[in-house]
Amino acid sequence: MALRNLKLIVEYDGTDYHGWQYQDNVATVQGRLEAAIFGMTGETVRVTAAGRTDAGVHARGQVVNFKTGRDFPTHRFLTGLNAYLPADIAVRSVAEVGEDFNARFSAVERRYRYYICTAYTALNRHACWQCFFEMDVAVLNDLAALLPGRHDFGAFCRVEVTSETKVCEVRRSLWLREGDMIVYEVSADRFLHGMVRTLVGTMVDAARGKTDPADFERVFRSRDRTLAGQAAPARGLVLEEVRYP
Amino acid sequence: MALRNLKLIVEYDGTDYHGWQYQDNVATVQGRLEAAIFGMTGETVRVTAAGRTDAGVHARGQVVNFKTGRDFPTHRFLTGLNAYLPADIAVRSVAEVGEDFNARFSAVERRYRYYICTAYTALNRHACWQCFFEMDVAVLNDLAALLPGRHDFGAFCRVEVTSETKVCEVRRSLWLREGDMIVYEVSADRFLHGMVRTLVGTMVDAARGKTDPADFERVFRSRDRTLAGQAAPARGLVLEEVRYP
Repeated sequence: MALRNLKLIVEYDGTDYHGWQYQDNVATVQGRLEAAIFGMTGETVRVTAAGRTDAGVHARGQVVNFKTGRDFPTHRFLTGLNAYLPADIAVRSVAEVGEDFNARFSAVERRYRYYICTAYTALNRHACWQCFFEMDVAVLNDLAALLPGRHDFGAFCRVEVTSETKVCEVRRSLWLREGDMIVYEVSADRFLHGMVRTLVGTMVDAARGKTDPADFERVFRSRDRTLAGQAAPARGLVLEEVRYP
Repeated sequence: MALRNLKLIVEYDGTDYHGWQYQDNVATVQGRLEAAIFGMTGETVRVTAAGRTDAGVHARGQVVNFKTGRDFPTHRFLTGLNAYLPADIAVRSVAEVGEDFNARFSAVERRYRYYICTAYTALNRHACWQCFFEMDVAVLNDLAALLPGRHDFGAFCRVEVTSETKVCEVRRSLWLREGDMIVYEVSADRFLHGMVRTLVGTMVDAARGKTDPADFERVFRSRDRTLAGQAAPARGLVLEEVRYP
């Protein structure tokens, strides 16, 4: 029998995980999900995800696929996988897709949000960066508006990133106010490792007056990672949605 | 020197607490807040809250007052108390108020929300009731619409409630959709112990077809607590706001 290809939308609270990607002997979201699949199906699989989120980063709309030989209906996979998963990981939906669908390589757009909370918060403490300094939101928006388009984002990735091309097409890049939150929303065809957090950290440095906003564009054009600011904390970042053709 | 009267707005994640009210030897929100005040000021105080939330219930807008002999500016209280509090309790604001202000007895309206999530969720797992059965939201809204006005809510309080009057004036009572959430929003001059959770539990029983929606009004008019449904789980309930003249 041909294997079926299943697409999952997965939500997780990354607080207690060493990121998405499987590693021996530490808790990762991928490891927990593969264990739940094994628990339910008895199959040892390797799952593919659209975005390999870092330690502490959350997802509301991570997309994952894997192949299975089991013929359970998809709603059985939904309830079964959730029964095997810990409470901080939830499968939101399961759908059967064509054999060529690959959660990572078929994706055409990822959307992230970075949440900054400007007040003391208890209920949202795991899913935002609490900032108690003054920030000029107009500066944040001016800088975010420089990013849409196809550009080399080499200035804003992790130092160790060695991917051939650092060109990403940013489609949406803006700051929103939601109650006590200042939210950076950004979508692109792809993101470099650490890119959103480094962009946020560098924009915030300018908005709080630690750096000159005019320097931001110079750093951006330089493609030199050593000039950008520190990455903002992982806990504020959420992979919201992944789009496919 | 006359004592100053301070009003705090307090947010908390009730998951790990045995409710608001101080009890010896167990973790309560009141106990933690009084310990933080002692840590900061050296004063042993008893604080008064607008709503004594049950174990597991959350607050975004609990209001508290206490008297202090310290002359710190209010912004020092804000940063100081938050430094002494655990991460799941946050003081959102501190204001000095007249000596007659009492967070409980001066309050003229409380607003609660009860969050039901109809999908699997990880990020909101502590702050909603996850319901995977079908519910008729039109029934929920029909029943909620019966409640505004001054009525005896004796049918919807904890069995042990012995307060003289069980009359409450409900001002707002409706269900909203917010993404995957179905949210019950209710405001009143006062609430009986367990009232919101019992209302939600009884409305949900009707909306899922376990009881006849027509029985709800009969239960309500009976004022007999033994007829209502089970209280909905604590984790879905949030004290959102308290209003003063």
